[in-house]
Amino acid sequence: MLNVCLFGAGRIGRIHAANLAGRPDARLAAVVDINPQAARSLAEAHGAATRTVDEAFADATLDAVIIASSTDTHHELVSAAADRGLAILCEKPLDLDLERAQASVDVAASAGVPLFLGFNRRFDPSFRRVHDTVRQGGLGKIEVISITSRDPAPPPADYVARSGGLFRDMMIHDLDMALWMLGELPTGVFATGSCLVDPAIGEAGDVDTATVVLTSATGAQCQITNSRRCAYGYDQRLEVFCADGVARADNDSETRTVLGTAGGFLSEPALPFFLERYEQAYRRQLGAFIDVVRGQSGADHGGLATGQEALLSLRLAAAAERSMASGRIESP
Amino acid sequence: MLNVCLFGAGRIGRIHAANLAGRPDARLAAVVDINPQAARSLAEAHGAATRTVDEAFADATLDAVIIASSTDTHHELVSAAADRGLAILCEKPLDLDLERAQASVDVAASAGVPLFLGFNRRFDPSFRRVHDTVRQGGLGKIEVISITSRDPAPPPADYVARSGGLFRDMMIHDLDMALWMLGELPTGVFATGSCLVDPAIGEAGDVDTATVVLTSATGAQCQITNSRRCAYGYDQRLEVFCADGVARADNDSETRTVLGTAGGFLSEPALPFFLERYEQAYRRQLGAFIDVVRGQSGADHGGLATGQEALLSLRLAAAAERSMASGRIESP
Amino acid sequence: MLNVCLFGAGRIGRIHAANLAGRPDARLAAVVDINPQAARSLAEAHGAATRTVDEAFADATLDAVIIASSTDTHHELVSAAADRGLAILCEKPLDLDLERAQASVDVAASAGVPLFLGFNRRFDPSFRRVHDTVRQGGLGKIEVISITSRDPAPPPADYVARSGGLFRDMMIHDLDMALWMLGELPTGVFATGSCLVDPAIGEAGDVDTATVVLTSATGAQCQITNSRRCAYGYDQRLEVFCADGVARADNDSETRTVLGTAGGFLSEPALPFFLERYEQAYRRQLGAFIDVVRGQSGADHGGLATGQEALLSLRLAAAAERSMASGRIESP
Amino acid sequence: MLNVCLFGAGRIGRIHAANLAGRPDARLAAVVDINPQAARSLAEAHGAATRTVDEAFADATLDAVIIASSTDTHHELVSAAADRGLAILCEKPLDLDLERAQASVDVAASAGVPLFLGFNRRFDPSFRRVHDTVRQGGLGKIEVISITSRDPAPPPADYVARSGGLFRDMMIHDLDMALWMLGELPTGVFATGSCLVDPAIGEAGDVDTATVVLTSATGAQCQITNSRRCAYGYDQRLEVFCADGVARADNDSETRTVLGTAGGFLSEPALPFFLERYEQAYRRQLGAFIDVVRGQSGADHGGLATGQEALLSLRLAAAAERSMASGRIESP
Repeated sequence: MLNVCLFGAGRIGRIHAANLAGRPDARLAAVVDINPQAARSLAEAHGAATRTVDEAFADATLDAVIIASSTDTHHELVSAAADRGLAILCEKPLDLDLERAQASVDVAASAGVPLFLGFNRRFDPSFRRVHDTVRQGGLGKIEVISITSRDPAPPPADYVARSGGLFRDMMIHDLDMALWMLGELPTGVFATGSCLVDPAIGEAGDVDTATVVLTSATGAQCQITNSRRCAYGYDQRLEVFCADGVARADNDSETRTVLGTAGGFLSEPALPFFLERYEQAYRRQLGAFIDVVRGQSGADHGGLATGQEALLSLRLAAAAERSMASGRIESP
Repeated sequence: MLNVCLFGAGRIGRIHAANLAGRPDARLAAVVDINPQAARSLAEAHGAATRTVDEAFADATLDAVIIASSTDTHHELVSAAADRGLAILCEKPLDLDLERAQASVDVAASAGVPLFLGFNRRFDPSFRRVHDTVRQGGLGKIEVISITSRDPAPPPADYVARSGGLFRDMMIHDLDMALWMLGELPTGVFATGSCLVDPAIGEAGDVDTATVVLTSATGAQCQITNSRRCAYGYDQRLEVFCADGVARADNDSETRTVLGTAGGFLSEPALPFFLERYEQAYRRQLGAFIDVVRGQSGADHGGLATGQEALLSLRLAAAAERSMASGRIESP
Repeated sequence: MLNVCLFGAGRIGRIHAANLAGRPDARLAAVVDINPQAARSLAEAHGAATRTVDEAFADATLDAVIIASSTDTHHELVSAAADRGLAILCEKPLDLDLERAQASVDVAASAGVPLFLGFNRRFDPSFRRVHDTVRQGGLGKIEVISITSRDPAPPPADYVARSGGLFRDMMIHDLDMALWMLGELPTGVFATGSCLVDPAIGEAGDVDTATVVLTSATGAQCQITNSRRCAYGYDQRLEVFCADGVARADNDSETRTVLGTAGGFLSEPALPFFLERYEQAYRRQLGAFIDVVRGQSGADHGGLATGQEALLSLRLAAAAERSMASGRIESP
Repeated sequence: MLNVCLFGAGRIGRIHAANLAGRPDARLAAVVDINPQAARSLAEAHGAATRTVDEAFADATLDAVIIASSTDTHHELVSAAADRGLAILCEKPLDLDLERAQASVDVAASAGVPLFLGFNRRFDPSFRRVHDTVRQGGLGKIEVISITSRDPAPPPADYVARSGGLFRDMMIHDLDMALWMLGELPTGVFATGSCLVDPAIGEAGDVDTATVVLTSATGAQCQITNSRRCAYGYDQRLEVFCADGVARADNDSETRTVLGTAGGFLSEPALPFFLERYEQAYRRQLGAFIDVVRGQSGADHGGLATGQEALLSLRLAAAAERSMASGRIESP
């Protein structure tokens, strides 16, 4: 039974806690949050202890940490966990700053502890099936990848201000998806963005609608479209066009119901947001992490995104920002 | 170039005329209609002559007739055409009365002229593909057939009165479909009906909503649902469940457009009615008929429904009527 | 916190146990099974006690029982639970014999304890949405209901022998669905069946393929098709045709993936069987039961099937058997 | 009855001839082709005359010309037709050279004759419905347009050599679609391309796989993906993401058939190529052109692409070529 300490008792932290509760091979041992009330409430619901950061890292019974606290705490927590030899699953981004992110990866590597980032979409059953189908080669070489990713509604302007911007905060997921699907590092990044959804986002210096094109050494191309607005649910789709066919992941909905009336056939909107769409993905990602900690995982870590891979997606996001400013294709 | 005489310049007759115009190997030579104005108008549009029935059958240049006049004229016209050795494509039903229908088939057989009924659904591309897929055997033995057939709106009550009733007028198409798909004559017919759409239909002694079950010697079963009302277009679907899978024909729509809004994803209603849904089917059926007349067809007459087969569907319709009255399964 | 005793530690019992573990308001207090090893294994996994039947009913801390043991134990357990004033959720059927089933309902009614049957499909999100949409009346009066229900593979012949036959064992779910959707008791039942899947089923005196038609006083009709074989997964579909439109529930699949190749577009088969298809339904059904026990439910018991309703579906199943033998429509 | 002269008796010319044959208000009067045999064969089939270019333009009975001959003849024929005051429907491109294309537009404008380009996709029923839905404003402002356009197989290398390259030959259709949907002239064009399908295309100096991004003054963005290879048919799709929803046009297929087996549900591939996909579009485009010539059309010419608009798409194609070379966003 693995003992896991959770940093951060917010929305994502609670998902991890609930998923730990469903595991026969791991338990939530401790919860750390700067808000003691939030920590206590979550800890009590799961029979866990509440701890300060220092107490947590002094606890010799821990096997792993899950970091779901605010981004500015990631580097410090990763470093401390690495120091203690604890396996780490950290929510993205590692850091908004590429150098500090690199430092986090380095410290984990030096300590020899596994460090993974919570790019949970890799564990979405549909995306995973597309990935595996393409990797198994039955469709031939990848030619073009098309990723559609649209949030249902823009975040509050104050979130935007500290989010690192659309490319590091939102598109980072799609850039990781592109990396994971492509299986090669893009060589060029072109980006364009505009503010069409909420003027406050533009005032905060960010965009809310963006298109990115990635190029690669093999000639494979990838297009990504992002928007902070989507009327019909959380739009998360993928198409991988290969020499011999296409593999596609469509949106899911709450039920399989269709209503036929004089106006036509109405099926349901896409699931509302990531909590619903990626419910299974969070559960499977945790399973993969536990498998790694228990030494039951192969060379691909069950598909978990390594710290090293997280640096690559951050570099792509940074290149996208430069491209949007320069109007030219940039190297990541 | 085959010379074809058309009896009946109504809605169906005009379809045949237009389809003849698109053929390089046949032409509309003459039009006969009790309404001279209708005959003239259609004949002029296609460079054809107008004829009386007697004139038509005195014309030695004719090769074939298409009978799209009212049902009560079918027997007389079939007999005269058979007498003249002309190939016959007759709109359904051959006759509402089983004995007269049998007599029509007999006269054509005696004369050795080909007699086909306009069960055009056999030429619908989707139904044809289901049929061929099942016949080719890749799905194994047929177990259950399910036919859904719903008209968009009830016909006028006076039409109902002379239509022969739902089973002979509307379900006859589905009974023919069942025969064609099954490839064996059903041994039992159960029917139930109610009047849910238009009380005038009930007052005319008919039903507007019906369910029929067919049984067969091999144990294969068939269910048919009919309604004279359908809000979302003309509902014409088929499923053939076999030992190793199912073949299904869905409805078609005008375009492939989908609108996604907060309410969900809206695709288009089914095509409005038979003119739209079976546009291709009429064209292909005519082609099959011309091929037969030109001696370019195989033993299956390109899938055309023979007079003999039309008698079988009439017998099934009659058995359905008896079953609705008796409450028991009836032999056809 | 409700204390629930579970009778039966088999496949269905384990589902209930796992779902209880996910509830904040109820707990699995005890497990009873004739196989002590099975009881102990399940009880230990959930921190529950193992009990004999007598011990269980002597336990004054229990609030409710879930009966998932073999059908022949249902009557005795329902009676004992009713005697002790415990709320009852019993897997279907109440009993294969209509009189004993009636006796179970009577004893619960006399004792004033709530008795519900595990017709879990009422809690399938898609079927529930169809039901609610139709009930809310936006589509007008129900005209025709069509239920497709096909198991992936036939059960072992020895199961068939003690199952009560296809109508009481398998179609009973669809008959309950028909009752629940129709909102009125059918007045006529027609059934036909054949043995197309496994000759051993026929030798056991049962059928494996059946079609049933229900008629009603309002004229609404219902058709049900059942098969013990289905190549493409567990086929569980519903269409409710109303005056102003249709509400349809389609099958679900594991992912939303589509592969496009020269052969066409391939989407996934239906979910394999009831454990996968009705995973959510079991969870929601348990929630509704707990709500009833806690007095937080309305007059419709959250949609749970009452013992009284279970008798109706049993009567429909019995009428279907009589109809298959008599070849005529039978009164339930 | 309009008299139309057709230049070019090739594949596209024959489509126009057949569509003219189906019109009650226009006729194919003459056919001109450098291959006299091709001209004669087509003319005879439709009761038209064969003419040389000079004879054709000397014929005072003509009302309009359709130019479907090779691209290098377009300018001369447009000029001559304009000189004679004849309405012109010209297959795309007007010319591969922007200056000569401009000259063609100028000469038609000076002569006051209507000049339209055969951007037939505007008349595809699905694309038209998306266009009209978006224009009617019910979905709010356009944010992002996504166009997928993939040919089933690469053209012969010698065609590629004289085609003007992927952007002027193939993507020109998508650029026109973008213009037509956007309703505003893009301000920036980014393009990337690679040769993944046929090395001979690369040797001819062209690409066979390309991604283009268009930006605009309003901030709306458009992405276009093109490939000369597509295993699953002719992939022609469109999504227009707006503030309040999305309008989407999917591919069409030959039938609505679905096969369900253990491997899943197989529906048909997309229609094979443009002759099948745009059959209706060609017919409707011709109708719109005839309406214009007969003075029965509104200010939008029924949606026909004007010569002026054709220049815009050519300018976008030229900018895409420049961008692919420069690696930066270019002004059209």
